[in-house]
Amino acid sequence: MVSWKNFDTLASYEKLMALKDRVNLVEVMSGENGAKRVAEYCVPMACDMKYNFAAKAVDDDILAVLQELADEAQLTEKYAELYNGAVINTGEKRLVLHQLCRGQQGGDVIADGVNKREFYTGQQKKAADFANKVHAGEITNAAGEKFTTVVQIGIGGSDLGPRALYIALENWAKRYGKQKMEARFISNVDPDDAAAVLKSVDVAHSLFIVVSKSGTTLETLTNESFVRDALKNAGVDPSKHMLAVTSETSPLAKSADYLEAFFMDDYIGGRYSSSSCVGAVVLSLAFGPEVFAAIMDGAAESDALAKDPDIRKNAALLDALIGVYERNVCGYLCTAVLPYSQALSRFPAHLQQLDMESNGKSVNRFGEPVNYVTGPVIFGEPGTNGQHSFYQLLHQGTNIVPMQFIGFNDSQIGMDVVIQGSTSQKKLCANVAAQIMAFACGKADENPNKAFAGGRPSSIIAGKDLNPKSLGALLAHFENKVMFQGFVWNVNSFDQEGVQLGKLLAKRVLAHDTDGALKAYADMFEI
Amino acid sequence: MVSWKNFDTLASYEKLMALKDRVNLVEVMSGENGAKRVAEYCVPMACDMKYNFAAKAVDDDILAVLQELADEAQLTEKYAELYNGAVINTGEKRLVLHQLCRGQQGGDVIADGVNKREFYTGQQKKAADFANKVHAGEITNAAGEKFTTVVQIGIGGSDLGPRALYIALENWAKRYGKQKMEARFISNVDPDDAAAVLKSVDVAHSLFIVVSKSGTTLETLTNESFVRDALKNAGVDPSKHMLAVTSETSPLAKSADYLEAFFMDDYIGGRYSSSSCVGAVVLSLAFGPEVFAAIMDGAAESDALAKDPDIRKNAALLDALIGVYERNVCGYLCTAVLPYSQALSRFPAHLQQLDMESNGKSVNRFGEPVNYVTGPVIFGEPGTNGQHSFYQLLHQGTNIVPMQFIGFNDSQIGMDVVIQGSTSQKKLCANVAAQIMAFACGKADENPNKAFAGGRPSSIIAGKDLNPKSLGALLAHFENKVMFQGFVWNVNSFDQEGVQLGKLLAKRVLAHDTDGALKAYADMFEI
Repeated sequence: MVSWKNFDTLASYEKLMALKDRVNLVEVMSGENGAKRVAEYCVPMACDMKYNFAAKAVDDDILAVLQELADEAQLTEKYAELYNGAVINTGEKRLVLHQLCRGQQGGDVIADGVNKREFYTGQQKKAADFANKVHAGEITNAAGEKFTTVVQIGIGGSDLGPRALYIALENWAKRYGKQKMEARFISNVDPDDAAAVLKSVDVAHSLFIVVSKSGTTLETLTNESFVRDALKNAGVDPSKHMLAVTSETSPLAKSADYLEAFFMDDYIGGRYSSSSCVGAVVLSLAFGPEVFAAIMDGAAESDALAKDPDIRKNAALLDALIGVYERNVCGYLCTAVLPYSQALSRFPAHLQQLDMESNGKSVNRFGEPVNYVTGPVIFGEPGTNGQHSFYQLLHQGTNIVPMQFIGFNDSQIGMDVVIQGSTSQKKLCANVAAQIMAFACGKADENPNKAFAGGRPSSIIAGKDLNPKSLGALLAHFENKVMFQGFVWNVNSFDQEGVQLGKLLAKRVLAHDTDGALKAYADMFEI
Repeated sequence: MVSWKNFDTLASYEKLMALKDRVNLVEVMSGENGAKRVAEYCVPMACDMKYNFAAKAVDDDILAVLQELADEAQLTEKYAELYNGAVINTGEKRLVLHQLCRGQQGGDVIADGVNKREFYTGQQKKAADFANKVHAGEITNAAGEKFTTVVQIGIGGSDLGPRALYIALENWAKRYGKQKMEARFISNVDPDDAAAVLKSVDVAHSLFIVVSKSGTTLETLTNESFVRDALKNAGVDPSKHMLAVTSETSPLAKSADYLEAFFMDDYIGGRYSSSSCVGAVVLSLAFGPEVFAAIMDGAAESDALAKDPDIRKNAALLDALIGVYERNVCGYLCTAVLPYSQALSRFPAHLQQLDMESNGKSVNRFGEPVNYVTGPVIFGEPGTNGQHSFYQLLHQGTNIVPMQFIGFNDSQIGMDVVIQGSTSQKKLCANVAAQIMAFACGKADENPNKAFAGGRPSSIIAGKDLNPKSLGALLAHFENKVMFQGFVWNVNSFDQEGVQLGKLLAKRVLAHDTDGALKAYADMFEI
């Protein structure tokens, strides 16, 4: 049996806290020792990617204690509990099963009388069959014409993950003839969001996917109505253009208002739901079911590697533990995620939700306040863009912000140009290599304004190219990293009670049931 | 004469540091006292907007010391130095004149033998005349057909600001018939960025603006070559489709390779350059010169208000000082910028550069290390999207992240739908009001997992609608805020030495002039 204990009650906690400021990155990354670190501080990942942590401020002694922590906190045993169907989401008393969408890491999980992997893959198959029929012209609009566009209506996890994945593969798909339909996304309750997307698509040839597990998400229902109105105004029958992704018990599940409904359940949280029908329907329609299946295969590879109790063989586990070291021992608040790949332009926004909504908690899994800091603030933009923006603070600001780089040897589209003796892609890669070293080692200068202190830690995930499989592997790597960190902090990474109060107060404002400052703010906006 | 002193040498510094944890936000924002604060803690801004700071953890005593600080640090006097043409950018020995693009706040500024306002407005006029001719079909492609699309090629400040402004007004312009041309942006050296944009436009009907002050920015030159190749391959003469925005001394300035060149100078830094031809050319082409002029008018209104030494009448100054209080007294590292407007989706990315590149410094304006923290980490996404993402951590995480909300009474496009008794726009506004109060006051609950501690400070900038003028006012508000903070911290907010080392090392990688860890990373990417 695993034992759920607060981080600061573990023997390894005290040991780890004693290892602050132990590694001088400038020193260890200089000279041939630095090259040795790059060779040795490297863990293989799924899809031939690697996690290189040479430029993190750790050494073998710290790694040994991190291994002790992993063992003492039973991190991989807890992971096994999760994939074998324990009630890991304690607050909501739910299993946590997103990994079953992509593989079977443990035994069969039977819940509510159903084999859950069969349920999830059954829904994926339903999405695949539906997509194939749409692509084949067997499911068409009323005029018998093919659908060309799919629009996802959802918010939070129903938007950020699927959107990030779509953007990540759009150019790859165009290159390899896999783009079956254009995809668009409507999320914000701001009516300008839906209006702008509707103006940009041909509604008569568009399918709209309404994604809401409960069938009650206010933003999504509002945007659905917005779209229904637009369809009616265009003389189009909404029920022939709208799909639902929802739970079987939701009001959307068996309604004649939808051409088809695809099901999810309470055991997959929004921010983990790209692997469920939340991602399957839109991505299968956009790129074809086999592309979605490849994403799942890559994710399953990551999930399998995450079982290894050896931190030097388990990139997600090690990434998590180094993050804990930086957060709790070094006291760093933020982590910057910096993909050197334009295709990953919205991946940091997905990770921002994944990480901050999972581990931005002040109570443990039993609802008791904890006495240590938990999840970091996540932000990021693609390189090299970020270099010409906020990197100034990362290099020379008064606070240290740990960084997580991601880079690939090859571009996605394959078009390139040689300028000053190198391709754009080589320049991109040269920049990420240069930044890692600039951050780690800095540079002395007589003029303090031109001096770089160095000592700014980073890791890099490096791969050959960004394709459906490696993308799936990345997705799962970060999910598993966040899960392991939640285990260390003993928090429930799978609920989000912090979103409730705002919803409640917004309802009161709309019902004119306010007083004091809330009324004053409502008056400011003439509500 | 103004006197440039480090923050911690001021008498008001000690006074301010003694005022930590003085205000209990939960208490002061509750009941009728809260409503009173909302009414009183409010400063008018340009374009009928207002800066409301009721939900910031300040009181009259703190405000009094912030006023003392403003006076002692001579913040508005320093601003006057700036707009009157002093060498504010000490490191690079340059004037700082972006405000002259939009108005004359002080006396004539003569530099390099030129009246600088005349120079900037002359270039804006040149951009306006050029745009008018393009729109009138007097300047066309070789086939005599009108240009329909403009593509900006630039990175950092040549991209983020103009792109954010374009996105902010695209739907407004469509509604009011002001959209003259579609605009796209190429920034990243990742070849997938340029390739994807080129695939999405009709190059034969596109104008390309190459934006580089020095004419040597590697990313931009590389992307320019990429585009030139594509034009040639399409049988199009690049010199009839490409414009340059550059300095008069740059290699791009007088080249026959460009249809026209527009000039900027060294006195406007990249992140402040939206008001110069960096923004003027692309925005005048996209929306017409009068829209760009309206942005400038709104900005000039903000610039004029920023002169007032009274912090209760100068929103930029007060916003800056409250930020300093939060950064240096409370010790908060981050600020989240949260616009409740989908149109401002990329405004936080612009502010991230503006703020972090300006004040992410560890040395003062004389190049001496400072002993206090400087610029914050800035991140943000539009609401209500963020509510379903990272707000969990903002509400219940272990660290406090101050927030800056922005909201408008009216939507831009004007299409809306009534659901459950209210429009989408009302729901959007109700949410921002609700969030401010949820963050400030929290909610007690027997179950700590459902409890909200509150005490999470925020301000809001509220306006009637987002149009060219109010957008310009917002742009300038934040520029002036960042400037005032830089004055308090005594840093040079107008250089960016922190970007140099990475450039240098990247060149060495591409020249194969590496050893040690840098060589190892280069090898990882097979450079």
